[in-house]
Amino acid sequence: MTTKIAITGGLGFIGFNLIKEIIAHHPGINILVIDNLISKTLNGFQNISNVEISHISISKDNASRLTSIIQGCETVVHLAAFGGVEASIIKPWDNFVNNVEATLVLLEAIKNSSVEQIIFSSTGGALMGKTLPPVNEMSLPLPISPYGSSKLACEGYIRSFCECYDLKGTIFRFGNVYGPWSQHKQGIVNKLILASLKNEFITIRGDGSSTRDYIHVKDICQGVIKGMEYSDKCDPKTCNTFHLANGVEVSLNSLLEVVENISSSKIKRLYSDELTGEVTHNFAQSLFAKSKLNFTPQVSLDEGIRDTFEWYNRIMSAV
Amino acid sequence: MTTKIAITGGLGFIGFNLIKEIIAHHPGINILVIDNLISKTLNGFQNISNVEISHISISKDNASRLTSIIQGCETVVHLAAFGGVEASIIKPWDNFVNNVEATLVLLEAIKNSSVEQIIFSSTGGALMGKTLPPVNEMSLPLPISPYGSSKLACEGYIRSFCECYDLKGTIFRFGNVYGPWSQHKQGIVNKLILASLKNEFITIRGDGSSTRDYIHVKDICQGVIKGMEYSDKCDPKTCNTFHLANGVEVSLNSLLEVVENISSSKIKRLYSDELTGEVTHNFAQSLFAKSKLNFTPQVSLDEGIRDTFEWYNRIMSAV
Repeated sequence: MTTKIAITGGLGFIGFNLIKEIIAHHPGINILVIDNLISKTLNGFQNISNVEISHISISKDNASRLTSIIQGCETVVHLAAFGGVEASIIKPWDNFVNNVEATLVLLEAIKNSSVEQIIFSSTGGALMGKTLPPVNEMSLPLPISPYGSSKLACEGYIRSFCECYDLKGTIFRFGNVYGPWSQHKQGIVNKLILASLKNEFITIRGDGSSTRDYIHVKDICQGVIKGMEYSDKCDPKTCNTFHLANGVEVSLNSLLEVVENISSSKIKRLYSDELTGEVTHNFAQSLFAKSKLNFTPQVSLDEGIRDTFEWYNRIMSAV
Repeated sequence: MTTKIAITGGLGFIGFNLIKEIIAHHPGINILVIDNLISKTLNGFQNISNVEISHISISKDNASRLTSIIQGCETVVHLAAFGGVEASIIKPWDNFVNNVEATLVLLEAIKNSSVEQIIFSSTGGALMGKTLPPVNEMSLPLPISPYGSSKLACEGYIRSFCECYDLKGTIFRFGNVYGPWSQHKQGIVNKLILASLKNEFITIRGDGSSTRDYIHVKDICQGVIKGMEYSDKCDPKTCNTFHLANGVEVSLNSLLEVVENISSSKIKRLYSDELTGEVTHNFAQSLFAKSKLNFTPQVSLDEGIRDTFEWYNRIMSAV
């Protein structure tokens, strides 16, 4: 495996979990964290010798500094992004600058540096929009939110940069990722768990029949690491796309029940209209990830939600 | 049909032909041309009462001016773009700013104005990249150049803006368009005709076996007008995609022969390497355009090249 990796958004939810995993199981790898600290987790990696942290935004103004910073790395894992369908509908331009423009800035830096490959976190649901699930790597992306469009745009640029400038790319389309160290995220799993623990009302968009493909962050990290190892063996110009998901369609009502069973208490809820631009039904088959990466999710929904619930319970008790 | 249309890039090759067609056959329509004059044709529309020309670049700095300018229009036909696969590989950022960023600026202006629908000129070949031809509306876009990526990004944003802000969209994926008033374009048809008329050498990338789907600009204009009429009847949030092409795969060597037959002279040629990022084989089926728009190309390759050749001959004699 590659010996020096830059991870953008490395102090965010998935980045933080991924780095913990790499530190634990791949101690030979040096990690450069690139993070603007906007949505960092509670703790950084201050006392770990093979993790270096660079506080910098990926923006046009920082383009040349960024090129110097990633010089010496072989791989960039690009996780930094503005998430959130609703936020992207309210401010499409902010989402565009932070997702699409930033990715192009990063790709230009990669092209001008030692970096040979980019690993990118895309999305399964928002990208596909109205395409009927289950989706897979052959499904037609039809995004219905600026957020989904931003990820499609990034995917296209990564693919063409690989072809034109002899790079390698791995595009991961994540399902709905949940798990520990996600306290700054707006995901539904977090909202449900917090509503349960604080005994507060939660607002349900629609009637609860909308579906998602939930996947624990531990499974995502396994998939990303397998993808990096696979990409190492690929030729320049290769760009692979993998859905990383459970392949299981879970309704919001079922998710509510899972949390209620774990907490042994009823969650108080209000109902409101569905959000335009939000996908109603989604789940994905990880066909290519299974066949090429031998990827199989290990964490069941019940087990994963329990793990996340207990983690939230611990950090809330610790405050 | 809509009574006031804004046409970006209206003084460019396709825009100029489209406006001539609308003036001739739809005299009730008022046209607002939005053009930065970078690649304008020889003549504008100075003396035509229902054509108004606004010299403005579609850029972030002009965002609010643009919103005022298009106020009162019902439709925007967005043709302004940086073409050219090779140029996009040399300067991906310039291409991005002029294609993707500009389209998002325009979409924001549309969202904030009276405009209800956008008609967009995308591309069949560069968008599809390595997807095996014949491509159609169900094929998977896999762009291999920044230019192709820029068009994919625009398509995604148009689709999501339609969904989120109650607009209507029509995305046309053009084949390789040729025809009169294309003197500022770098297309292969122009290069061949000019090489023939001036008795100059032409450089052929590869061995001449690469293929394209050539379509005369008159057929493109017919398709775009049919698309506008169709879109008028659609509900908000609708976004349709149509390939506008001949469905005929023509090799570069065959195209050379056609021009040589028309000119009754041999074209002097040099051969060089194929260009990375340039699609080798492409042609498209216009399945949806045929079924929904009753689109059938009328101009044969021989007829169309003859028409273009004679037009070039006339303007060169006139100089």
